[in-house]
Amino acid sequence: MKRRGLPEPISRLIEVLSRLPGIGEKNATRLAFHILRAPTEFAESLSKAITDTKRKVTLCPICYSFTSENPCEICSDETREKTSICVVEEPIDLIAIERSGEFSGKYHVLHGVISPIEGIGPEDLKIKELLQRLSGVNVREVIIATNPSVEGEATALYLAKIIKPLGIEVSRIAHGIPVGGDIEYIDEITLGKALRDRKRM
Amino acid sequence: MKRRGLPEPISRLIEVLSRLPGIGEKNATRLAFHILRAPTEFAESLSKAITDTKRKVTLCPICYSFTSENPCEICSDETREKTSICVVEEPIDLIAIERSGEFSGKYHVLHGVISPIEGIGPEDLKIKELLQRLSGVNVREVIIATNPSVEGEATALYLAKIIKPLGIEVSRIAHGIPVGGDIEYIDEITLGKALRDRKRM
Repeated sequence: MKRRGLPEPISRLIEVLSRLPGIGEKNATRLAFHILRAPTEFAESLSKAITDTKRKVTLCPICYSFTSENPCEICSDETREKTSICVVEEPIDLIAIERSGEFSGKYHVLHGVISPIEGIGPEDLKIKELLQRLSGVNVREVIIATNPSVEGEATALYLAKIIKPLGIEVSRIAHGIPVGGDIEYIDEITLGKALRDRKRM
Repeated sequence: MKRRGLPEPISRLIEVLSRLPGIGEKNATRLAFHILRAPTEFAESLSKAITDTKRKVTLCPICYSFTSENPCEICSDETREKTSICVVEEPIDLIAIERSGEFSGKYHVLHGVISPIEGIGPEDLKIKELLQRLSGVNVREVIIATNPSVEGEATALYLAKIIKPLGIEVSRIAHGIPVGGDIEYIDEITLGKALRDRKRM
């Protein structure tokens, strides 16, 4: 929407910024004016960081997390346990778990959860790829760290059902995470505790 | 800071986003991952909007607000009253006042307030330029809409003292704005009322 006194480029920037999650129009306006008042180098580095991220970051062909290397840093790290795989919904959940410092195995990113309401079935997630990984490498345990939502729990149950017959232990990140909460926002201590207290499924 | 599992370009983007006002590291992480998951067009339009804003927007040589035209849209608008000038601290305050729909005159942006603590004196603001404007055009009233902070009040008093001798009426945007508040965040109704209830100084 065009506003009196608002030059078109600023108006456009506010409009694009408002599309970011959790950024309303007033907040977007404040951010736009901050960018405008900051030194040119800041605007340039922000602009470059955005395009660089989009251009250089792809999905790791092993764990499907975001990476700028192939395979990703964690998948290529020989010091991490190969026998334990932690399954998460999104790459950002992986970052949250790394921050807790409680897990030294590998990851697998599903890129979503099973959600019949949104028409997302197991075939829309990286589950086939997980099963391929499990058949290739000697994995002892799969820790399911999907969000404690209805869909996250359903996805965990689904995975347990198909992975346990392979003779692999399946555990679920412990409750302690508030139900309905969002893994990426939980403090490191709680998340670390939830990892230690995981229950066998 | 380099984090395990976080590719360098994302890490860099989070770092730059965290420098924006009100954006903490977790929030920046969420925004970065959102940008990464969104279509490439979104990242491109965001990146372009940032550089465009910085490249195309300058200060209006009359009112010193941000503009992509010369002079700005409001200064060149013949339908607006030339006899009334509303003085604001920052361009974002002008946008907030325009949103209230209560003012149809012209503006003057000071780009700050007098603040002895921060070493900002009248000569660091666009006050000289305001006086030049007042000597050139036939202005009947100057409405001072600086923030209701100590510095905003002091600046208002300073301006009243130097403008009143020119035979121009000087008024102050009414209290009704919570003291210590920030003009850009006040709702339109309150701001409109505060403009209508302005008091002569």
